[in-house]
Amino acid sequence: MSGVTIKILAERLQLSTATISKALCDSHEISESTKKRVLDLARELDYVPNAYAGSLRRNKSKTIAVVIPEVADSFFSLALNGIEEAALEKGYHSLIYLTHEKLEREKTILKELTNGRVDGVIMSVTVETNCFDHIREFNRKLPIVFFDRVCDELDTAKVTTNDFECGYQATKHLIDAGCRKIVLLSISDNLSIISERGRGFKKAITDEGLDENDCRIIGCTEDATQNYHLLKNLMQGPDRPDGIIATVEKLTTEIYLVCQQQQISIPEALKVICFSNQPTAVILSPGLTTITQPAFEMGKKAATILLRSLKNNGLILREESVVIPSELIVRGSTQTCFNSNK
Amino acid sequence: MSGVTIKILAERLQLSTATISKALCDSHEISESTKKRVLDLARELDYVPNAYAGSLRRNKSKTIAVVIPEVADSFFSLALNGIEEAALEKGYHSLIYLTHEKLEREKTILKELTNGRVDGVIMSVTVETNCFDHIREFNRKLPIVFFDRVCDELDTAKVTTNDFECGYQATKHLIDAGCRKIVLLSISDNLSIISERGRGFKKAITDEGLDENDCRIIGCTEDATQNYHLLKNLMQGPDRPDGIIATVEKLTTEIYLVCQQQQISIPEALKVICFSNQPTAVILSPGLTTITQPAFEMGKKAATILLRSLKNNGLILREESVVIPSELIVRGSTQTCFNSNK
Repeated sequence: MSGVTIKILAERLQLSTATISKALCDSHEISESTKKRVLDLARELDYVPNAYAGSLRRNKSKTIAVVIPEVADSFFSLALNGIEEAALEKGYHSLIYLTHEKLEREKTILKELTNGRVDGVIMSVTVETNCFDHIREFNRKLPIVFFDRVCDELDTAKVTTNDFECGYQATKHLIDAGCRKIVLLSISDNLSIISERGRGFKKAITDEGLDENDCRIIGCTEDATQNYHLLKNLMQGPDRPDGIIATVEKLTTEIYLVCQQQQISIPEALKVICFSNQPTAVILSPGLTTITQPAFEMGKKAATILLRSLKNNGLILREESVVIPSELIVRGSTQTCFNSNK
Repeated sequence: MSGVTIKILAERLQLSTATISKALCDSHEISESTKKRVLDLARELDYVPNAYAGSLRRNKSKTIAVVIPEVADSFFSLALNGIEEAALEKGYHSLIYLTHEKLEREKTILKELTNGRVDGVIMSVTVETNCFDHIREFNRKLPIVFFDRVCDELDTAKVTTNDFECGYQATKHLIDAGCRKIVLLSISDNLSIISERGRGFKKAITDEGLDENDCRIIGCTEDATQNYHLLKNLMQGPDRPDGIIATVEKLTTEIYLVCQQQQISIPEALKVICFSNQPTAVILSPGLTTITQPAFEMGKKAATILLRSLKNNGLILREESVVIPSELIVRGSTQTCFNSNK
């Protein structure tokens, strides 16, 4: 909260607090010119209007916002279910805002949310989020809990999974299955989760003594067609990998499609592992080996931390952060070749 | 809008309009007992508070709500993108509310939304929605546009696809491919879209002269495990179908899984067609034949109709309803058997 009160506005404008209050309520007793002076100063000082401020103090909006990049990824749709389960239990509504992976929309949404519509925010940042001033600014007024894609510089709680270990484990799993030229497909240089998975990947490559020139991190985009062509070129090129780690679920379709079309057999010629919660992993042919994140639990935990803080004083400590481990689920797409019928 | 004004409240309570106004603004000039009388009557008469009413009249909240059952289904995640594209173009925010297919939550959300937080609503009802009083009640105050899962009794615009024709077309396609015992998997007796698809299914069965005792509509649930057992029993039973039409995307996983486990070959022993927008349809083995809905376009159209009405007087005519056709995309899962290598 900004700390600006009706009293401060009254002092600055040399008016009574009653006049300020009426002006803010758009009372007919106050002249238009006075109303304008009051509103202009209120805006300038970032005054949170009375009704909202009261509602905030008493946690009466009973609403939290969930700000996430998209819902097409099954991680986020499952996490939403966890968030809403926890919110419902405490009698809270949750509003969902989608940033569509755009930093500008993230900024607009957070700005819009300072108006008191919600009591706090649960968020996962966009692939474009490379500065955090807008989040820090927002966090001065309202509490935030991050989940999955976090902003480590902010002094608040984060609910994450063990991305570094999972990057390591996925890479080690491919090496154990015989891969020597492994590619990790990234979607952003900014995201905490992707850089952690990348660090785990590199560490496993070094630990296992593989040639670092044969193992690369390649950046994909938000565009399925672009990713398809990138993968097509990769699989036709001289440095064709024998193992792929996809850091996001949606790359699965393009990987399988390129292999189908180029008649590259999975897992014989290429082993594939994907960070994914998609239910169809099990019916793909071959079944897709996944690092499956505790999406529901992560959402539920983030909401629980936020709601507990709202019940108290709105203060959230960095120490409340939680790491919930993911699970490697081995299926046909990474089977070793002497036993590869599914 | 309810039509109850401050003047009406003043007359009923024998107070001045200024007193009512101050009481509603929680002014310190008004006694607690008077405030209580005013608020009680305001609640009873369903008075929309001043600030909100003003905001509604001027369309100042610049926010619309999207009330949908879930986001795990790719239809809804694509439709959301369409809605948000149209909203952004006109400078509107969209808030997403999930009902999780629960009628009670739908009622709570609509009630909550009458407080003036939004200017209008775009919605798709739950599988449980078998009465419409809560929607009708809401629609007296704020405009609604339905999409996909509509409530035909309400006098407003609906954006749908040609569900009847698609049910017919899917059934005819299976019959042409050689099926004689076709099952349509439903998820609700209430939903407009499912009953329309069912009508198309029955019409095609009759038109093509199939035995109606061999062709059935079977109800599935929201629970994946239950659906799995239902399908397992169906495929092991004496009335095993040779064709399945799944009216919702999520049934795909259980159908393919049961077939894998019982070694029932698709499309040789069972042909499958699904109402779905899932990108993975193309990489399943065999590829899944789909009725693909114009999800993005439907969402965008619904938002366009709502925003146009907000720009004018909030009035939406039934005549503004639009039907955007879906598309049958034939893949391996319905190929005829003399040519079935996908």
